[in-house]
Amino acid sequence: MDRVKGSPRGRAAFLNPKIEYWNVPLIRNDEVLEQPANQATLTKRYTEEAERFIRENADQPFLVYLPYTMVHVPLFASEAFQGKSARGLYGDTVEEIDWSVGRILSTLKSLGLDQNTIVFFTSDNGPWLPYGTHGGSAGLLRMGKGSTWEGGMREPCVVWWPGGIAKPGMVTQELGSTMDIFTTCLSLAGAAIPTDRVIDGVDLTPVLRGTGPSPRKSMAFYRGTELYAWRSGSFKAHFITRGGYGQNKPVKHDVPELYHLLHDPSEKHNVAKDHAEVLARITKEVQQHRADLRPVTNQLER
Amino acid sequence: MDRVKGSPRGRAAFLNPKIEYWNVPLIRNDEVLEQPANQATLTKRYTEEAERFIRENADQPFLVYLPYTMVHVPLFASEAFQGKSARGLYGDTVEEIDWSVGRILSTLKSLGLDQNTIVFFTSDNGPWLPYGTHGGSAGLLRMGKGSTWEGGMREPCVVWWPGGIAKPGMVTQELGSTMDIFTTCLSLAGAAIPTDRVIDGVDLTPVLRGTGPSPRKSMAFYRGTELYAWRSGSFKAHFITRGGYGQNKPVKHDVPELYHLLHDPSEKHNVAKDHAEVLARITKEVQQHRADLRPVTNQLER
Repeated sequence: MDRVKGSPRGRAAFLNPKIEYWNVPLIRNDEVLEQPANQATLTKRYTEEAERFIRENADQPFLVYLPYTMVHVPLFASEAFQGKSARGLYGDTVEEIDWSVGRILSTLKSLGLDQNTIVFFTSDNGPWLPYGTHGGSAGLLRMGKGSTWEGGMREPCVVWWPGGIAKPGMVTQELGSTMDIFTTCLSLAGAAIPTDRVIDGVDLTPVLRGTGPSPRKSMAFYRGTELYAWRSGSFKAHFITRGGYGQNKPVKHDVPELYHLLHDPSEKHNVAKDHAEVLARITKEVQQHRADLRPVTNQLER
Repeated sequence: MDRVKGSPRGRAAFLNPKIEYWNVPLIRNDEVLEQPANQATLTKRYTEEAERFIRENADQPFLVYLPYTMVHVPLFASEAFQGKSARGLYGDTVEEIDWSVGRILSTLKSLGLDQNTIVFFTSDNGPWLPYGTHGGSAGLLRMGKGSTWEGGMREPCVVWWPGGIAKPGMVTQELGSTMDIFTTCLSLAGAAIPTDRVIDGVDLTPVLRGTGPSPRKSMAFYRGTELYAWRSGSFKAHFITRGGYGQNKPVKHDVPELYHLLHDPSEKHNVAKDHAEVLARITKEVQQHRADLRPVTNQLER
């Protein structure tokens, strides 16, 4: 985010990115390794660092959290991937991530760790729409990053766990959240779920093992501290709708908009008038959710 | 289309379809077998008819053209499929088609015909958007039926040909048209392409066998007799844009809108101003296309 003075302003720098436009440091622990970092090398270096860590810790339990900088603007792919995909720079960058994840899975296999390691591959938000073909695509889902439409917050998740997944290549539409990864991992490791605080995650093990449905039946969609939408089973109610970051004004709905996400994942067809009973159920769930909330001090102000 | 008098008007009959709303006949050759036909039985009966025909003709070359009535509104699935999919009635109907196609492939296998039979599975147009969840979805493609945006005219095509496809499960984005199926089949059967008329189809055999690119480099997008858009390689130019049937007025573009369909399959980002050379190439291709056209008498008026 540290834009070099004199580099192009606004989105221009992102749509034709050059390394020298950003003064971004590459840091290991407390040490700055390179500044400005050559961002075209980041994906590969992150992967190599993760592989090194895995090899060094192969004889004990370990956790790797590997949030690649790509495929976020400004996009950079290493030389081996530049111009290689049909999808342009975005595709090149995705293909390098794909290659990198393959490298990590190969490392796990070569160390004999594939039967007792679980890998979650997912993303944090939908496409940043103002960045066009550099911002990604939510496919058939509505809107993008910043909005509480599905295109903003619904993410694919691939779980790789040869020793535990019920059926290789299985596909599920069961409900899950990144918050559930914590709880699921604790459960799989045989550790106790903390009881001194409210834990929002649920244990997704039954879904992975194919022994039962997801314990998650609902999902809250916040923008900042405001509840915009609520999912309950197959339905999602929108109390407030709004476009992505910097777009539009919020619109409050006296009667929430209601979508059946299995019949209509694109949230095109509001079925509120046919499902008053679902809206009533959601109203109750939201009341309970609000009653459960404990106000906390902003951690940045503590 | 033969609506029974007194049945609900407009879209209402389609969105909550009942057999008795339509006086549709089921015909074999010149014989009416049933009227009104029980549309919930159509998918299965078409499949059984095709299987019978294949069995009866197993010892000689044959052609089956099997245009299912489903999944077009009004949607009907047989009892075995009603309420079985997560996607509602549309999904039930798709799943029955899926089952039916599986039946036909099994029949070919059981007769030992799978090594020298080629099966094309494709569709004629995108979703009929005013029919909501009954009209289908074009996924990430723009607009639907009736429009010359990709959502109206771009279709998936699965080709099953165990004896000939280069690589099982291979995916290609090479350009092809339903018009090419005719030419490709003639070529595969060793028959001559007619020379007494202009044949618009090309031979897609190289794509299927993995021996080369598609000979098709361009595609015309007509609405009625008017050329709305033109694809050339990865690019598509829109001279006129318009929504689906019954929607909007046509908008003429002095400078055509231009989209890179590999980078931007959703046709969201007009890149005309960056690619004057592509527009110039397309202008030439369109001139040549128009020069090639031979006006014919309307067949209905002959």
